Amino acid sequence: MAAPSSSSGSASGPRGAMERCLRERAPPLLTDLYQFTMAYAYWRAGRHREPAAFELFFRDNPFGGGFSLFAGLHDCQLFLRGFRFTDEDVDFLRTVLPPATEPAFFQFLRDLDCSGVTLRSVPEGTVVFARVPLMEVAGPLAVVQLLETSLLCLVNYASLVCSNAARFRLAAGPRRKLLEMGLRRAQGPDGGLTASRYSYIGGFDLTSNVQAGFLFGIPVAGTIAHSYVTSFTSLEEVWPQTLAAASGVPDPVDLISLTKGWLSRVCELLGAAPGKIREGELAAFLSFAIAYPQNFLPVIDSYSVGCSGLLNFCAVALALCELDYRPVGVRLDSGDLCSQSVDVRRVFRLCGERFSVPAFHSLLIVGSNNISEQSMAELSKKENEIDVVGVGTHLVTCTKQPSLGCVYKLVEVRGRPRMKISEDPEKSTVPGRKSVYRLEDAEGHPFLDLVCLEAESPPEAGVPLSCYPLGRDDSAAASSFTPARVTCLRQEAFSRGQITQPPCSAAETRAKVQISLQTLHPRHKRLQEPDAYTVALSEKLHKLVTEIRRGSADDSNFLLAN
Amino acid sequence: MAAPSSSSGSASGPRGAMERCLRERAPPLLTDLYQFTMAYAYWRAGRHREPAAFELFFRDNPFGGGFSLFAGLHDCQLFLRGFRFTDEDVDFLRTVLPPATEPAFFQFLRDLDCSGVTLRSVPEGTVVFARVPLMEVAGPLAVVQLLETSLLCLVNYASLVCSNAARFRLAAGPRRKLLEMGLRRAQGPDGGLTASRYSYIGGFDLTSNVQAGFLFGIPVAGTIAHSYVTSFTSLEEVWPQTLAAASGVPDPVDLISLTKGWLSRVCELLGAAPGKIREGELAAFLSFAIAYPQNFLPVIDSYSVGCSGLLNFCAVALALCELDYRPVGVRLDSGDLCSQSVDVRRVFRLCGERFSVPAFHSLLIVGSNNISEQSMAELSKKENEIDVVGVGTHLVTCTKQPSLGCVYKLVEVRGRPRMKISEDPEKSTVPGRKSVYRLEDAEGHPFLDLVCLEAESPPEAGVPLSCYPLGRDDSAAASSFTPARVTCLRQEAFSRGQITQPPCSAAETRAKVQISLQTLHPRHKRLQEPDAYTVALSEKLHKLVTEIRRGSADDSNFLLAN
Repeated sequence: MAAPSSSSGSASGPRGAMERCLRERAPPLLTDLYQFTMAYAYWRAGRHREPAAFELFFRDNPFGGGFSLFAGLHDCQLFLRGFRFTDEDVDFLRTVLPPATEPAFFQFLRDLDCSGVTLRSVPEGTVVFARVPLMEVAGPLAVVQLLETSLLCLVNYASLVCSNAARFRLAAGPRRKLLEMGLRRAQGPDGGLTASRYSYIGGFDLTSNVQAGFLFGIPVAGTIAHSYVTSFTSLEEVWPQTLAAASGVPDPVDLISLTKGWLSRVCELLGAAPGKIREGELAAFLSFAIAYPQNFLPVIDSYSVGCSGLLNFCAVALALCELDYRPVGVRLDSGDLCSQSVDVRRVFRLCGERFSVPAFHSLLIVGSNNISEQSMAELSKKENEIDVVGVGTHLVTCTKQPSLGCVYKLVEVRGRPRMKISEDPEKSTVPGRKSVYRLEDAEGHPFLDLVCLEAESPPEAGVPLSCYPLGRDDSAAASSFTPARVTCLRQEAFSRGQITQPPCSAAETRAKVQISLQTLHPRHKRLQEPDAYTVALSEKLHKLVTEIRRGSADDSNFLLAN
Repeated sequence: MAAPSSSSGSASGPRGAMERCLRERAPPLLTDLYQFTMAYAYWRAGRHREPAAFELFFRDNPFGGGFSLFAGLHDCQLFLRGFRFTDEDVDFLRTVLPPATEPAFFQFLRDLDCSGVTLRSVPEGTVVFARVPLMEVAGPLAVVQLLETSLLCLVNYASLVCSNAARFRLAAGPRRKLLEMGLRRAQGPDGGLTASRYSYIGGFDLTSNVQAGFLFGIPVAGTIAHSYVTSFTSLEEVWPQTLAAASGVPDPVDLISLTKGWLSRVCELLGAAPGKIREGELAAFLSFAIAYPQNFLPVIDSYSVGCSGLLNFCAVALALCELDYRPVGVRLDSGDLCSQSVDVRRVFRLCGERFSVPAFHSLLIVGSNNISEQSMAELSKKENEIDVVGVGTHLVTCTKQPSLGCVYKLVEVRGRPRMKISEDPEKSTVPGRKSVYRLEDAEGHPFLDLVCLEAESPPEAGVPLSCYPLGRDDSAAASSFTPARVTCLRQEAFSRGQITQPPCSAAETRAKVQISLQTLHPRHKRLQEPDAYTVALSEKLHKLVTEIRRGSADDSNFLLAN
């Protein structure tokens, strides 16, 4: 939607404002109370400084799909860097923690920061899979415990909406432009802002959200709503009524008369009845064209596309062309978008040919009408002439699955691996600090994510390795794979109080997403019933899991009472 | 969940922080770009100061229910009061609006505020129904147009999650305490904060979200997570190991020995095998009990409730009782909550009787495990002993319907009623500025919301009135009703740049919600297949609609081209 020009060329928005904004959005009190009661219990027991590591991951790929995108890292980095309690925060905590809490604990909180925390993470915008540990947060036990809820909150929705956007993009195909316009349906202002930012990163081209343009440099777009059209009733409301040609003759021309002339020619060409044309709609189009002659893209279904909106558009657009302006296109906001777009395109071609107006052959058709992933996929299969699709509710609320379900699990304390052993094997965790490698085949497609113990040497290209794929019925059976290429999936992202990676703009991360998605084999990208991607444990890690399970089943972890 | 004390008694949080926070959350740029292009077109045509009125409403009650709650008003009032563009905002707009935009328009924006805007609104926390205009926003055309997206964003999710919370409350019955704990699954930090605030207003009792306690005075609760339990492996990690009695003897007692003694008695009483008891879990419970002896409420299903968690809890709790402390209860976080809670209660009673410990007869059982409205309703039908239910994902993401779909429609410009006439009658709007009256029957139940023209005199108690119910097949047929009581549903909420109502605390609004819901007849409150509440147009308003439709169908609104 070319209408208003985008700011995509400029820097990626005022970072200062963005960072301030995050401190306001995610202060360290924005967490669950039990993080504080647990931190106190650790502190009281003198365990608060024990080195510990948590891992963040999700258990199922969202939307029944074969992959997810990882997002929210940069917000996590900013959160860690700014993590500090104010006097006001601590005073409030005094009122909600039990009276038995020792005063020295509040001084401990007052002095806390994340200088002892190290974050290793998958890069923002990477294709990821269920059960792969995406982030490892290591540091003093009480501190890394306190970070849980905030990190989950910052990653969960960002990754979910980014993945949702990527699926809309896959459903739409690469050609069509996608416009995010969900602000009014999001979970409040910040939900809307996060949705705009990560929809763009996931593959959308444009947003209607001006603040997202301001903060993140996302191209913004939009022209007029139905209320603008219905606010006009008569041509008398059009003022000024004249427009100077884009080039050449300096004298302004009476655009109303000029348009009326075109309107009768259009009606004649199309065999349309002039008596059904809405005067208010024509007045609205004229007013808008006079205000923005280079950006004329009205919504044409406020009354009737065929009987009024399309005729009015063609007349005004032809008048603009006569004055050497280039109209942009139309928006359809109801009904069967596909068939309407075909009719509209036919009329554009007819007018373009009959009146020899080349601009009519490149007019845009924008469609929006409660588009879901499914209706986007259906739209892609049907004949249609829609160039830009606007998506709101189903994108930002992720109707198909409104939460990702990331979890944050303890994997090590004081150098000892920790494991949650659940009767439900899906809910058990994998112990120990790890490295994660992505293995690619000879065609450059990733085919396996290997989770190893940190101390293990990395797998090598061309060398067969034996490992234990997760989530199979025969989880005790090893498989052998030979990678053509191996990459380390996680990098240090925060250490000693500092962000250890240069930040990426939204546009840069968006480009990374596209590259990451392109390398993924189509069988994992299918929106319906994709092939499962393999995530496996190294032999050593599998052995550790087995030992802990066995140990847990028969010895030291049990209390032989008395 | 009595554990940490609540701050409900204190003032309703630091309002200053809350208001600052809203300015950061909802700056005037947080809107759709087309609001600016339309504002420019109005300005260019000299129409920007024309008096106009928009209405905000939704078309269907959410969740397939018979009602909604209205929320978000106070945020809207703060938004209107703070609505002002900074130089930085305007500079950014220069880069995204088309180059043809006249410079004077940016000065116009720079000088804008809401001093000319009047908001009339249903009070926060009122039970409302589809198609009733909840807010009327009147003022200069360009200004009230610019407010659209932000007001929708502030009302939509707040009302949705508040209504969702009210439905969970109805499903749970009045006795059980409800704890909101959805922060990690919300649409980012602010989605989580809005969820906590409006879940409380809708009928929840507690939140896990500390920042929500800080800003809105909501009682916060929470104790420990599985990670705390699994971070312990042995009794050697318990430190300090002693605890002084709550009263009496000042010498600290070795809590480990004391608890071990109780553990063998509990095992004997229950015929349990001591060999299956987890030492790490016992260590975690002991550590927590020593830190917070008056707030002992651990999660008991990290390993096995029956073989370990419950036994460990009873032993520690009996030791605490011996030292004159009062243990609080247990949390169950997986499996069949109902049957487990019955078993747990049976054990509590047994211990209470056998060991003569009255505190065991009033222990709380907290349950949480992916609770939906449906599972809450099922839980209420089954035998169970759950005192407090924790709800996260399904509450905050409103899985059953993740957006409310409020719209903002133009109803008057320059004193002339405006109406959107759609081929889909559901999408047509009702023209003109209005008053809305709620009619009650002799039992005090509201039975009809009457939408009148502003100039009409209000209906009177005891006097029959004729009106046209909306949404019926025979929409042309008048019905007659005699109210026992009539109240005006909307009040002035913002005028001349000022909020015209004293703000209510979250607790006050929560109380209003309960009153508003109590007066509603049960047939409208049924969660499944409720009876539809009647919303009707007055005779005069119905006549206006008919005239505009007829006028629209045959005369002046059409352009007789040439």
